[in-house]
Amino acid sequence: MELAVGVIGTGNIGADHARRLATRVAGARVHAVFDLDGDRAAAIAAEVGAVALRSAEEVVDDAAVDAVLIASPGDTHAALALACIAAAKPVLCEKPLATTTEECWKVVEAEAAHGSRLVQVGFMRRYDAGYLVVKQEIDGGRIGEVLLAHCIHRNQSVPPSFTSDMSLTDSVIHEIDTARWLLTEELVAATVVPVRRSPLAAEGLLDPQLVLLEAASGAVVEVEVFVNCQYGYDVRCEVVGSTGTASLEIPTANVVTTAGARSQPVPVDWRLRFGAAYLEELQHFVDAVRAGGVAGPSSYDGYAATAVAESCVRSLKEGQRAQVTLAKRPALYETA
Amino acid sequence: MELAVGVIGTGNIGADHARRLATRVAGARVHAVFDLDGDRAAAIAAEVGAVALRSAEEVVDDAAVDAVLIASPGDTHAALALACIAAAKPVLCEKPLATTTEECWKVVEAEAAHGSRLVQVGFMRRYDAGYLVVKQEIDGGRIGEVLLAHCIHRNQSVPPSFTSDMSLTDSVIHEIDTARWLLTEELVAATVVPVRRSPLAAEGLLDPQLVLLEAASGAVVEVEVFVNCQYGYDVRCEVVGSTGTASLEIPTANVVTTAGARSQPVPVDWRLRFGAAYLEELQHFVDAVRAGGVAGPSSYDGYAATAVAESCVRSLKEGQRAQVTLAKRPALYETA
Amino acid sequence: MELAVGVIGTGNIGADHARRLATRVAGARVHAVFDLDGDRAAAIAAEVGAVALRSAEEVVDDAAVDAVLIASPGDTHAALALACIAAAKPVLCEKPLATTTEECWKVVEAEAAHGSRLVQVGFMRRYDAGYLVVKQEIDGGRIGEVLLAHCIHRNQSVPPSFTSDMSLTDSVIHEIDTARWLLTEELVAATVVPVRRSPLAAEGLLDPQLVLLEAASGAVVEVEVFVNCQYGYDVRCEVVGSTGTASLEIPTANVVTTAGARSQPVPVDWRLRFGAAYLEELQHFVDAVRAGGVAGPSSYDGYAATAVAESCVRSLKEGQRAQVTLAKRPALYETA
Amino acid sequence: MELAVGVIGTGNIGADHARRLATRVAGARVHAVFDLDGDRAAAIAAEVGAVALRSAEEVVDDAAVDAVLIASPGDTHAALALACIAAAKPVLCEKPLATTTEECWKVVEAEAAHGSRLVQVGFMRRYDAGYLVVKQEIDGGRIGEVLLAHCIHRNQSVPPSFTSDMSLTDSVIHEIDTARWLLTEELVAATVVPVRRSPLAAEGLLDPQLVLLEAASGAVVEVEVFVNCQYGYDVRCEVVGSTGTASLEIPTANVVTTAGARSQPVPVDWRLRFGAAYLEELQHFVDAVRAGGVAGPSSYDGYAATAVAESCVRSLKEGQRAQVTLAKRPALYETA
Repeated sequence: MELAVGVIGTGNIGADHARRLATRVAGARVHAVFDLDGDRAAAIAAEVGAVALRSAEEVVDDAAVDAVLIASPGDTHAALALACIAAAKPVLCEKPLATTTEECWKVVEAEAAHGSRLVQVGFMRRYDAGYLVVKQEIDGGRIGEVLLAHCIHRNQSVPPSFTSDMSLTDSVIHEIDTARWLLTEELVAATVVPVRRSPLAAEGLLDPQLVLLEAASGAVVEVEVFVNCQYGYDVRCEVVGSTGTASLEIPTANVVTTAGARSQPVPVDWRLRFGAAYLEELQHFVDAVRAGGVAGPSSYDGYAATAVAESCVRSLKEGQRAQVTLAKRPALYETA
Repeated sequence: MELAVGVIGTGNIGADHARRLATRVAGARVHAVFDLDGDRAAAIAAEVGAVALRSAEEVVDDAAVDAVLIASPGDTHAALALACIAAAKPVLCEKPLATTTEECWKVVEAEAAHGSRLVQVGFMRRYDAGYLVVKQEIDGGRIGEVLLAHCIHRNQSVPPSFTSDMSLTDSVIHEIDTARWLLTEELVAATVVPVRRSPLAAEGLLDPQLVLLEAASGAVVEVEVFVNCQYGYDVRCEVVGSTGTASLEIPTANVVTTAGARSQPVPVDWRLRFGAAYLEELQHFVDAVRAGGVAGPSSYDGYAATAVAESCVRSLKEGQRAQVTLAKRPALYETA
Repeated sequence: MELAVGVIGTGNIGADHARRLATRVAGARVHAVFDLDGDRAAAIAAEVGAVALRSAEEVVDDAAVDAVLIASPGDTHAALALACIAAAKPVLCEKPLATTTEECWKVVEAEAAHGSRLVQVGFMRRYDAGYLVVKQEIDGGRIGEVLLAHCIHRNQSVPPSFTSDMSLTDSVIHEIDTARWLLTEELVAATVVPVRRSPLAAEGLLDPQLVLLEAASGAVVEVEVFVNCQYGYDVRCEVVGSTGTASLEIPTANVVTTAGARSQPVPVDWRLRFGAAYLEELQHFVDAVRAGGVAGPSSYDGYAATAVAESCVRSLKEGQRAQVTLAKRPALYETA
Repeated sequence: MELAVGVIGTGNIGADHARRLATRVAGARVHAVFDLDGDRAAAIAAEVGAVALRSAEEVVDDAAVDAVLIASPGDTHAALALACIAAAKPVLCEKPLATTTEECWKVVEAEAAHGSRLVQVGFMRRYDAGYLVVKQEIDGGRIGEVLLAHCIHRNQSVPPSFTSDMSLTDSVIHEIDTARWLLTEELVAATVVPVRRSPLAAEGLLDPQLVLLEAASGAVVEVEVFVNCQYGYDVRCEVVGSTGTASLEIPTANVVTTAGARSQPVPVDWRLRFGAAYLEELQHFVDAVRAGGVAGPSSYDGYAATAVAESCVRSLKEGQRAQVTLAKRPALYETA
């Protein structure tokens, strides 16, 4: 039987997810959608062959909905995830799991109390072909012991509402999860370093920022986040081990040579760069749920990422290194 | 409603297609399979939730089968495609459409007589992200008028049964279709150039070979085919225009630096290199059929490719340039 | 003691050589120059601290001139090289050694009669760092036995006087020498393949051209020459062996990322691309002469290259494969 | 007239310089050498056609010596540079100019008192073709305003005597000079960040280290120094501007494809990587001196680099950000 998914939030990401579920994911269909913008929800519902319901709660409670995808604004995530857990429904929750560490922890506790995994957090990079190769090189011992990593996260531009904190909680949070996943260890401290502001950044926005994440082993992950780089969406990393390095560059096989230059295209945005990863993520979620479980990035991963991002925000505010304190990982998440 | 597909031939390619249909393509399922090797067919059927039938004809005739995928040996393709046309069932036929130009033409004629597209030929490269960018650069005028192209087609190794002709009809045929598609014109002559044999090629196998394909405009497509290159599967091209060039290199974003070298992985085989393209191809076929039509590479494309490959074989045998003669493109294929 | 060099011909190449000798080569100085354009010669002479003489012969005969550099038009090379041999003076002769195979052979015979090497031919690629690595990879057995090679030779544009033959005798001749050197064997036949003309080529100029060079072993070197490619000077090759390939790409370590593209610069012309190789070549010549000998590409290499280029021209004219016939290599050149 | 150079210190670097002066630099010769290891000095002297003198002072004072090259241990540099200034002899002093900021400043003051440039400091990267392109892209406005930079400095391994401080004063000092030169501004603070130690680093050696250099404008230069990376010598950078980035990667045009990988060579050491830059540096020094002046990196540059390196060492010791205080640039250095 096809998995009937309810999609909460039909903004850019939610609509993309709904379309992918409807047209590219095997074994799934969109049964219901909800968005505060009712017209938007109705249009997407019509497009993907679903019904538009009147509230997020209706989506969760709809008996015909087998699983839920949360793509509404971040501050609604925790309550919705908790509702899904209460309803014992599998849920794929876009990052962040919640906007505060406390809320994240409530989700973790609720799921742990439930006794089995219901929540997957939308850290889609773990499904990206390039990152998977980096992970495989590290785990295979090809570069020795990991000592440090250099990460770059650049966006062409951001809307005027984007804040310095959001660079950390919305953008760097991907690097945080990636670091935890690649290094297979926790991050214990974060330092945000002030950098010369881009004259093209909106007033009040500190951009770029340099972030130093310290892992339990002493390994340091250095992250540049720059959300007004102008030229495109550029996410790269180099993980430095004791005997070699593993790098992820911009994926492309195309070169055009004209007018004195060999050029390779840089993607315009994350939808182009990570479209295939989002599809893998969704298929993986649907497959796991149909097979009776939930896997992938857990609510504990979502909790830890938000905790580190919060330390980043604190470091930015206080102008000094901020420690990360994590509650003990419940047994449910021990075999991740 | 999901499209119920019948898969004929469950060797490597057929089994891969069946699995993709069952687990990765939206809107499709495998209803029936057939293979001369009954045990193999039964195993695949069990894996993908289908029934194993006793003949290819049964698959075509099964009322519950909405569309057919032909992945049996090349010399069975034409008869099966004709059977599908007779049954008015959409069919995705692995390349080649048929092993002789005459047989291909019968398929074209039958489909033209039917009056609408039923056949898509499995030239999956047209769905590869990298080739699509090359096509787009050319069509967008970025490199001016196309004057020539350099293509490389290398396999790590081939089984002992592989012949010099098969390098042309099984491997170069992909380059032929790619050339026709990228240049948007027909190929009118082919010359196979003798090259020093690899000491690692099986006795009697001419490998590598150099092939010159001439397009109607005078543009020349130079192709190296080398099926014992040892190091991996390597398919690349550079299309040279009057103001620039568009190249396709090995797609990867990964670099490992160890022991004095920066290394990028070369895929082992075509399944790794073109896995995503095969998936796009299948999804595209399923989407088109469900929408009431068939698109993609047509039986005329299959006919033309086989005709050029036959000229290559003739050139190899006769040691000289061989012309390509194509029957007029029926009206049905004019808007491809 | 510094080597006093006489430079014959102070056009672009000759002037560059004179300047390099005067300012960048250790152990050498320019003593005398000559050019048909007396004003030009006088200006260069003043620049490099030399005297401008009234004829090429005066340069050769000047007792203060220890060695000669010939950079005058190609049709004067043979006579001047013979004059140098007659005067027992070491000579670095720009390619081609002569414009006809017969004339080249006269130089070879004269030098052989003299009994020791006096002539080095200006195939500067043998001193290019990148080509040297390719040579080393081949000779070190890293790619197994060489089976074929793909070479590209593109110029941004050429003056109106440039002819289809000159693409072969002035441009492809570099690929010919490179092929002989890299493969350590002779070329035995050449075929020029007609290609669609660039609309930007001057009237009457066949451009690009495709050239197939066959080596004694059966290895085939495929060469694209395109002298109006518009975008820059682009010389590359991939040598294909039985177990791997060795490639030379455009040398640069620089990348600029702006406006949706990662770009690497393509040099404008050969002076930029091969400036370091020309300097190595000159230093090598000066060092060898000061050490009492002449090494590097020999007059026999110059003879063989011109013989192959002549076969290319014949193939172009006659529209078919043209064999190359080489006279036996005199003992003097056996240990090259 | 050829410039007669006296070379003080004939260890690896000094011997290389002496050989280059003797065999590759136009207009120069080595007249005298000195080394504490007299046998070594005698051998090099014999090789380059010079005399071996009994002390460094003799070299400076030798009336036949026109210019001096200092390549002795760092702690001798200042005294020797001062002696050269006292003798009014042009001097190319290997980096560092001195091992303390105070000593550097004495050299600056002495040269300023002399009234014209006599000292060039051996920051050879300013003569590297790749760095020069980066500089040109920045100065040409191609990437907008510089906001930050990422630099990597890796050595395959170091001798047992190498200390954590030396990573900063011997290796990072190159990055410091490069940063000052590329950004055309001073560095005002340095922070050394502790990183997980490589298990392959000698006991007591902190390796790798992460260094943050802050420029007057607020731009931040992040430097990784790792002197036991095992795989080779790897120096790279990416300068990030407000509209784009300029990167320097490992320079090579060669690719070898074998056994599942496309590989590009990484140089073993700095002699391979910067050989051409050292030659340019020497030629530039000789040319400038012969033309009556001294240019290139000045003693003020050497002073500033050492001052920043000292701040790095202080930061490492104290575990916090260390400011850099620079004395005012004397007028003599204002037009650098």
